[in-house]
Amino acid sequence: MKAIQVQDDQQLVLADVERPELKPGEVLVKVKAVGVNRADLLQAAGHYPPPPGTSEVLGLECAGVIEDAGDTDREQGEKVACLLAGGAYAEYVAVPQGQLMPIPEGYSFEEAASVVEVACTVWSNLGMLAGLEPGQTLLIHGGAGGIGTFAIQLAKHLGLTVAVTAGSKEKLQACKELGADVLINYKEEDFAEVLKNKCDRILDIIGAKYLDQNVKALAKDGHMVIIGMQGGVKGELNIGRLLSKRGTISATALRARDLDDKANIVRSTTEHIWPLLAKGVIRHHIHQTLPLEQAQRAHQMLQDGEVTGKLVLSV
Amino acid sequence: MKAIQVQDDQQLVLADVERPELKPGEVLVKVKAVGVNRADLLQAAGHYPPPPGTSEVLGLECAGVIEDAGDTDREQGEKVACLLAGGAYAEYVAVPQGQLMPIPEGYSFEEAASVVEVACTVWSNLGMLAGLEPGQTLLIHGGAGGIGTFAIQLAKHLGLTVAVTAGSKEKLQACKELGADVLINYKEEDFAEVLKNKCDRILDIIGAKYLDQNVKALAKDGHMVIIGMQGGVKGELNIGRLLSKRGTISATALRARDLDDKANIVRSTTEHIWPLLAKGVIRHHIHQTLPLEQAQRAHQMLQDGEVTGKLVLSV
Ligand SMILES: NC(=O)c1ccc[n+]([C@@H]2O[C@H](COP(=O)([O-])OP(=O)(O)OC[C@H]3O[C@@H](n4cnc5c(N)ncnc54)[C@H](OP(=O)(O)O)[C@@H]3O)[C@@H](O)[C@H]2O)c1
Ligand SMILES: NC(=O)c1ccc[n+]([C@@H]2O[C@H](COP(=O)([O-])OP(=O)(O)OC[C@H]3O[C@@H](n4cnc5c(N)ncnc54)[C@H](OP(=O)(O)O)[C@@H]3O)[C@@H](O)[C@H]2O)c1
Repeated sequence: MKAIQVQDDQQLVLADVERPELKPGEVLVKVKAVGVNRADLLQAAGHYPPPPGTSEVLGLECAGVIEDAGDTDREQGEKVACLLAGGAYAEYVAVPQGQLMPIPEGYSFEEAASVVEVACTVWSNLGMLAGLEPGQTLLIHGGAGGIGTFAIQLAKHLGLTVAVTAGSKEKLQACKELGADVLINYKEEDFAEVLKNKCDRILDIIGAKYLDQNVKALAKDGHMVIIGMQGGVKGELNIGRLLSKRGTISATALRARDLDDKANIVRSTTEHIWPLLAKGVIRHHIHQTLPLEQAQRAHQMLQDGEVTGKLVLSV
Repeated sequence: MKAIQVQDDQQLVLADVERPELKPGEVLVKVKAVGVNRADLLQAAGHYPPPPGTSEVLGLECAGVIEDAGDTDREQGEKVACLLAGGAYAEYVAVPQGQLMPIPEGYSFEEAASVVEVACTVWSNLGMLAGLEPGQTLLIHGGAGGIGTFAIQLAKHLGLTVAVTAGSKEKLQACKELGADVLINYKEEDFAEVLKNKCDRILDIIGAKYLDQNVKALAKDGHMVIIGMQGGVKGELNIGRLLSKRGTISATALRARDLDDKANIVRSTTEHIWPLLAKGVIRHHIHQTLPLEQAQRAHQMLQDGEVTGKLVLSV
């Protein structure tokens, strides 16, 4: 089959490789569309190796059709969306059956392929781990990003007050249109001053650089979840301040979870989020679709920051 | 009435003061016995001021008899144990009704007075916040201390594997007799090496000094709860390491909680812990009982480290 390979010079090229072998509990999916993630860029650059035992091929989410149901009770020909530890930049991918999702009602392969990772990330962290209650205030860092735009819509639907940070007036305006209530330009204002003791929940993608400010922004019994470390890995934690608020800090990643965990997240996300996609309560925006062989160009576009919404590769 | 007052030279003396006035929802309790806590020493030294609006008098727990039920539906003459934000080193104390507990079956006033704070602290953090499941491994720092001995017994009753740290062979032996499975002398061994990636739950009283080691010791999906900062307030958090385990860190304090929270904790502790005290599943050890006027001596004994178990003042 054809698949994208990363050359020694880190260029992405289409090459002939072996079709993946199915392990017990896996199905073979003929890939129709692949979502492009920032993590794919990291992996191509050698910084984010796949978990042991998983495909070396890039690609954390896709949609397609079951080609071979293996030893499972799924049906050949079934249309599916898939959460993956890797392998989607290819004609075929092996998928543990717990990571198969239906295509959201009314969604194309492209739309489905590009919503899986963000939906599972946002729901597992905000819905399953931190828990969102109406009336709470949620701070979302990078509100205009892929994770951010999704999280704003979910939180507004659940009746929260939403504060966001973003790097420009235009991006803040985009957040506002999605429902965000408090808009903070992180280049001009200190969010910890604006939101001191006010945030019941924080979804953080910055890590070390924001650790102290996030603790300042936390409300009593507040819970922050760190899912990205764009601002560094090690930061000083003021435990006294955290204790005075009875605060909680979690840090999570989706890709390295075991099969049971992923199956659990996939099940819960399908139950809670798929209906919201079908009804258009949460809208998902594709920036552009390119053919798989232009993977290199897609990565370049993401790198250059010229993308608002998701990039998709069609196979 | 008589109450202990802290003089300018930080000596504790018995003095005449006004009886407390009841606020709505409070009852007046005639104090029979008071538990002495390390926090009382801190407060006497001026380092741990009472929360705004509460008594200036020392004393976080007591047992006694309701003298005046105020506007509540409690009964005059009822025997009660009380969780307090302060005020127990006295003949009478005003207690919000949500903070009244029954005397555990078979317990004396002295035993009841000295078990409230530790029971509410351990249960609210391990039972209500972190949650303990059979088969998990729990690390308890300071296993031979007041909090530690109580936590060991609770965790063993709930079917966990318990690891403890303590500062001497004798103290570790005492932990072993209470059921602890893994004994670590913190003066001789690095607990993070012994328990790397093994601890589903950690109860920490050290804070900054152990932050990095605690994160190393955490298992996947592990949760540590910090309730003391004997080793400092600010420490470096390795967010990358926490994220790789999907770990959670909480920091909590009991005294500053609001009335609803305290009532909730008191209710749950009465439900889950009081039967274990009545049955002797958890045993509670009083080191010595002194009369209230010897509060100064009690503080000195605690300061000098000559106490194993609780000190009680009888009124
Ligand atoms: N742990 C997991 O399971 C998991 C899963 C998926 C994604 N992630 C992580 O989540 C993060 C976001 O992913 P994404 O797909 O949404 O990427 P994205 O669309 O590229 O968004 C990145 C965001 O970071 C924002 N940002 C950069 N510097 C900032 C600062 N100093 N303060 C506030 N915001 C800042 C950007 O805001 P402006 O453009 O306005 O500057 C942008 O919105 C990434 O770090 C990714 O690795 C983690
Ligand atoms: N947040 C809250 O709501 C709350 C409520 C109650 C208590 N606390 C805190 O909990 C802590 C314990 O209270 P307690 O009543 O149990 O006091 P305690 O009986 O005096 O115990 C103190 C313990 O600290 C241990 N310790 C000292 N240095 C240590 C180290 N480097 N490593 C491991 N253990 C060490 C001691 O162990 P060795 O004697 O073996 O050296 C001792 O067991 C205190 O810090 C207290 O302030 C917090």
